[in-house]
Amino acid sequence: MASEASKSATPLLKDELDIVIPTIRNLDFLEMWRPFFQPYHLIIVQDGDPSKVIKVPEGFDYELYNRNDINRILGPKASCISFKDSACRCFGYMVSKKKYIYTIDDDCFNSLIWVLIIDVVVIFPDVAKDPSGKDINALEQHIKNLLSPSAPFFFNTLYDPFRDGADFVRGYPFSLREGVPTAVSHGLWLNIPDYDAPTQLVKPLERNTRYVDAVMTIPKGTLFPMCGMNLAFNRELIGPAMYFGLMGDGQPIGRYDDMWAGWCTKVICDHLGLGVKTGLPYIWHSKASNPFVNLKKEYKGIYWQEELIPFFQSVTLPKDCTTVQKCYIEISQQVKAKLGKVDEYFLKLADAMVTWIEAWDEINASAELPNGTKK
Amino acid sequence: MASEASKSATPLLKDELDIVIPTIRNLDFLEMWRPFFQPYHLIIVQDGDPSKVIKVPEGFDYELYNRNDINRILGPKASCISFKDSACRCFGYMVSKKKYIYTIDDDCFNSLIWVLIIDVVVIFPDVAKDPSGKDINALEQHIKNLLSPSAPFFFNTLYDPFRDGADFVRGYPFSLREGVPTAVSHGLWLNIPDYDAPTQLVKPLERNTRYVDAVMTIPKGTLFPMCGMNLAFNRELIGPAMYFGLMGDGQPIGRYDDMWAGWCTKVICDHLGLGVKTGLPYIWHSKASNPFVNLKKEYKGIYWQEELIPFFQSVTLPKDCTTVQKCYIEISQQVKAKLGKVDEYFLKLADAMVTWIEAWDEINASAELPNGTKK
Repeated sequence: MASEASKSATPLLKDELDIVIPTIRNLDFLEMWRPFFQPYHLIIVQDGDPSKVIKVPEGFDYELYNRNDINRILGPKASCISFKDSACRCFGYMVSKKKYIYTIDDDCFNSLIWVLIIDVVVIFPDVAKDPSGKDINALEQHIKNLLSPSAPFFFNTLYDPFRDGADFVRGYPFSLREGVPTAVSHGLWLNIPDYDAPTQLVKPLERNTRYVDAVMTIPKGTLFPMCGMNLAFNRELIGPAMYFGLMGDGQPIGRYDDMWAGWCTKVICDHLGLGVKTGLPYIWHSKASNPFVNLKKEYKGIYWQEELIPFFQSVTLPKDCTTVQKCYIEISQQVKAKLGKVDEYFLKLADAMVTWIEAWDEINASAELPNGTKK
Repeated sequence: MASEASKSATPLLKDELDIVIPTIRNLDFLEMWRPFFQPYHLIIVQDGDPSKVIKVPEGFDYELYNRNDINRILGPKASCISFKDSACRCFGYMVSKKKYIYTIDDDCFNSLIWVLIIDVVVIFPDVAKDPSGKDINALEQHIKNLLSPSAPFFFNTLYDPFRDGADFVRGYPFSLREGVPTAVSHGLWLNIPDYDAPTQLVKPLERNTRYVDAVMTIPKGTLFPMCGMNLAFNRELIGPAMYFGLMGDGQPIGRYDDMWAGWCTKVICDHLGLGVKTGLPYIWHSKASNPFVNLKKEYKGIYWQEELIPFFQSVTLPKDCTTVQKCYIEISQQVKAKLGKVDEYFLKLADAMVTWIEAWDEINASAELPNGTKK
């Protein structure tokens, strides 16, 4: 049941957005990605020391925000944006004026973590190859995923019914075949899998070599571990839920930024009737992060999540929560009421969630883009 | 997180059961499957005219039941077993004394539909090939699926964490990683997809050519369209829920036998904390059934399912339903109470569900196997 939208997805978005895609790591990397990303625009959120100069190769359209920019633009509300953690990336979601966001980690810098957010489409670690040996255009697949509907109310055993050569199977109710708009496209990673520190330590040599040629909707009512390494979403539909929380410097936790965003996002998508897809496209994840450092960042998260998952599984949103913002504020209140007893960190996080929404609305009410370093 | 059970699945079960697997179609077919199925035992449920002789090739261990056998063994309770429909296969589930069942359609006989149920493991249309060109040992994969746990409470983005080379990803709660026992392994089909008649008519040439190298747990609370073409299950865990209903001769509906079983099974698995997996293995489905005939069989099902799905989505089972039988009787009562108004067929079906459980318990209480045509 390939829809027209899905068939013509990529050309449509390219025409609409005309965004150049650079690289931000080095020229070799740039050349590898140039054929796919040059049409798109980059938002670079520079983490860490703002006096350090980030060199962006020639020929790509980008804007760059460092901590000074974030503080200047958000004022006291800058407190909701993490420092020294890739969670800072969500500032980029906020200042984008585009409909779609693609985000990835840049794993190549160990001490200086920086994060890319590129309007509509962006860059990630390395280009993966499909089983035929062809370079995978991850952007194209994410756009297809986002432009075709999701089917969260019933499971389709042949996976995404909107892909070419697939459809709904016998026994799938016809009333559910129209699907719902897709808000999130969660891509995967070949080579280094996205394991937590204990699993990394136990299986240091495990590599993901299995190319699974599937895209699927995560069913309504089911939570998933959303990884920020290769993630695209419709900012108009779900953007304000993509807050990556308080992580890193001054916080008791790290590496749960994308997880937090994923739990909130999924609960809100389920409430608003929006879809979340996972599967293709793959990127090539070439360098594992340090499991000992990760263990330090994660260890509170690892036991907190045992209470967080049941919490998110039981969150219900009232009917008058008709916007992402209203849903998010409601969740922040439930976080404060129910997770404050787990740790006082969650009281602080609940406040930051409110600040985030206030900042989002403020920035997005303005007709002018914030003033970062434009190129 | 490959478990020991999963790694040594096939040899274990082969030693345990020592069942020969025949073919029931012709010698060519037999030879194709011989390397995989010869160790196993077949139960053939002959549908249609019982005077017709079913020729089973030499060298395979089987028992065969025709309508006369079914009537003799079940007496008045034989009314719960469908006639002239592949739903009759569930009689084989009932008389098996083995722990595992594998079932497939034999699509090669148009007028005479017969169905195979092979204890622990069985035969299906044609052997599919994996992307490397190697014949797929579907039995081996089903056994692996059934012997390794399921993870229904949270979605794992790298699919089955119990396969070699895979594990639970970052953010997956550790308390849920032990998983639950797997009750059902739902395999897929290359070539002819399992479409309903309207989709067959609209897309007569569509073929499923996408080999998706994945096995996954269908999350708790999510229903799916269970196809009986390539299906394995743990009879001890879920057998009595695998009733294929009243279909075919004298009934207003066909081609919903496996769907009905799937809805009941999934609801009961969710209640009892059992897992349902779908994905690998593939079989090769070479011959499409007639869409015009299918439309006649399906058309009531197509609109009834619009009420059946919400019904099954809302079924809740009380805590004292601690066995499959108790769950199934409870569902039959809810069917009678809530679906009787859709059509009086469901009143008859609800009664048949009770008869099925009575017959199951009667047959399975006996130490002796029923007396079919043994070889």
